Amino acid sequence: MNKLTLELASQMVDTALAEGRRLALQPLCVAVLDAGGHLLALKREERASLLRPQIASGKAASVLGMGFGGRELSRRAAALPAFFNALSDLAGGNMIPVPGGVLVRNGAGEVIGAIGISGDSSDNDERCAIAGVLGANLVPDSGGL
Amino acid sequence: MNKLTLELASQMVDTALAEGRRLALQPLCVAVLDAGGHLLALKREERASLLRPQIASGKAASVLGMGFGGRELSRRAAALPAFFNALSDLAGGNMIPVPGGVLVRNGAGEVIGAIGISGDSSDNDERCAIAGVLGANLVPDSGGL
Amino acid sequence: MNKLTLELASQMVDTALAEGRRLALQPLCVAVLDAGGHLLALKREERASLLRPQIASGKAASVLGMGFGGRELSRRAAALPAFFNALSDLAGGNMIPVPGGVLVRNGAGEVIGAIGISGDSSDNDERCAIAGVLGANLVPDSGGL
Amino acid sequence: MNKLTLELASQMVDTALAEGRRLALQPLCVAVLDAGGHLLALKREERASLLRPQIASGKAASVLGMGFGGRELSRRAAALPAFFNALSDLAGGNMIPVPGGVLVRNGAGEVIGAIGISGDSSDNDERCAIAGVLGANLVPDSGGL
Repeated sequence: MNKLTLELASQMVDTALAEGRRLALQPLCVAVLDAGGHLLALKREERASLLRPQIASGKAASVLGMGFGGRELSRRAAALPAFFNALSDLAGGNMIPVPGGVLVRNGAGEVIGAIGISGDSSDNDERCAIAGVLGANLVPDSGGL
Repeated sequence: MNKLTLELASQMVDTALAEGRRLALQPLCVAVLDAGGHLLALKREERASLLRPQIASGKAASVLGMGFGGRELSRRAAALPAFFNALSDLAGGNMIPVPGGVLVRNGAGEVIGAIGISGDSSDNDERCAIAGVLGANLVPDSGGL
Repeated sequence: MNKLTLELASQMVDTALAEGRRLALQPLCVAVLDAGGHLLALKREERASLLRPQIASGKAASVLGMGFGGRELSRRAAALPAFFNALSDLAGGNMIPVPGGVLVRNGAGEVIGAIGISGDSSDNDERCAIAGVLGANLVPDSGGL
Repeated sequence: MNKLTLELASQMVDTALAEGRRLALQPLCVAVLDAGGHLLALKREERASLLRPQIASGKAASVLGMGFGGRELSRRAAALPAFFNALSDLAGGNMIPVPGGVLVRNGAGEVIGAIGISGDSSDNDERCAIAGVLGANLVPDSGGL
């Protein structure tokens, strides 16, 4: 597996949304990007608020942009706030350094895409993102612990 | 009532402005958006300053974007300043996390729009927004207390 | 009358919308700007399509920006397409050189604001705009004939 | 049916993609927006080129923005090129006046969303979009014939 397919991306999205329903979370939006940062699949539950697609896609773009999962980005943003403000401008707003953005790696450890989720708390968003990646037999890199 | 009409939106705007005059507040701007974040009605008192339309519309767009009233957004922004800086960039500036943005719900609790007011203190702006929603027999969700 | 008031702007908007209903036009959006190009009043009939507020405001901003009514702007855009393409970029998109943007003049001929309408054909939009200005006992300058 | 659900949006996307495979078309991207212009579901076949998500979403946003299907938009753009250049700037690029953007109407004729497809010829994109809407038992408005 060198390249993420739509089939696997769709499976990740559906598994993540199912996890959200199982946990009775707030309405979610889930986005999966390929390794080039381009959307493969996105679903927004119809009661989710309006910015959720941008936030979900932005979380996924952020982890691809910097090469770390969202949890690590949140630590770095706390340590280097001015740098992350600058990155946010540089990225046209696509720098959302919070948990819920997760790199997708293959068995060899290569980055083949990313998943981003928004709608509930960042911790819960991340939990569903990890479930989605595992459901596709791929390796989540959330930047944890 | 599943969809906000211009008639109801206009009534909200006029009631909110009348409340501002009754309280002798600073000149106000009031904006009402539909559930998709698109303007239905906006009025700016002629002595209000120049950015008031953008701030009023931005407050209304913010509560629709995140699904919480402005008072709750202000609490979250105080707790998570870096995240809200990032959201502001992501939303092209339409993230104004202060009181005065109020979700408009129907009797079934569904979000059917939002009202945003700017011109006086945030607390007074919010007071007029709530008066406007109640005046149309709809349910304000300011994110209070 | 040196400065447009909210009261007069609201009257223009309501008269223009009433004219649209009288003529059974498509759903309209009407925007009135003051002489500085800042919104005083805007109403969008709830079935009007989503870009109508931007187009209506943009038509009004265009006539204030260049100092000619929309009908004259449309003639100039036809004669000078490259210049108007450049103006559109310069104005961040707020250059819509078609009928339906009308300067509002006082009895002394001074520009005190502008009205823009979008929703039906440009000719019908302009007809309602002129009706709105006349209804407030002010002088429309559509850039006609 | 007053509001598009994620379930119906997903069904539209999957039906449209299946039609593309049945016809052996180029790789496609399909986007479904709600009535407010916000993404509900998007899928891009992994071999589709990089701008396809923006084009598909932009086609859907265009028909919601103006209230006409893409085929009618293409006729209007041919007749009024300067106006559509201006609209493109005003809409930040989200004005793609070609077939392949289709309004989604309910049985009462109300617009409840839009679908946009990009990847093959505009005619083939539109054919798949119509198939997607019909597959969800909703009414496509492509702006045809």
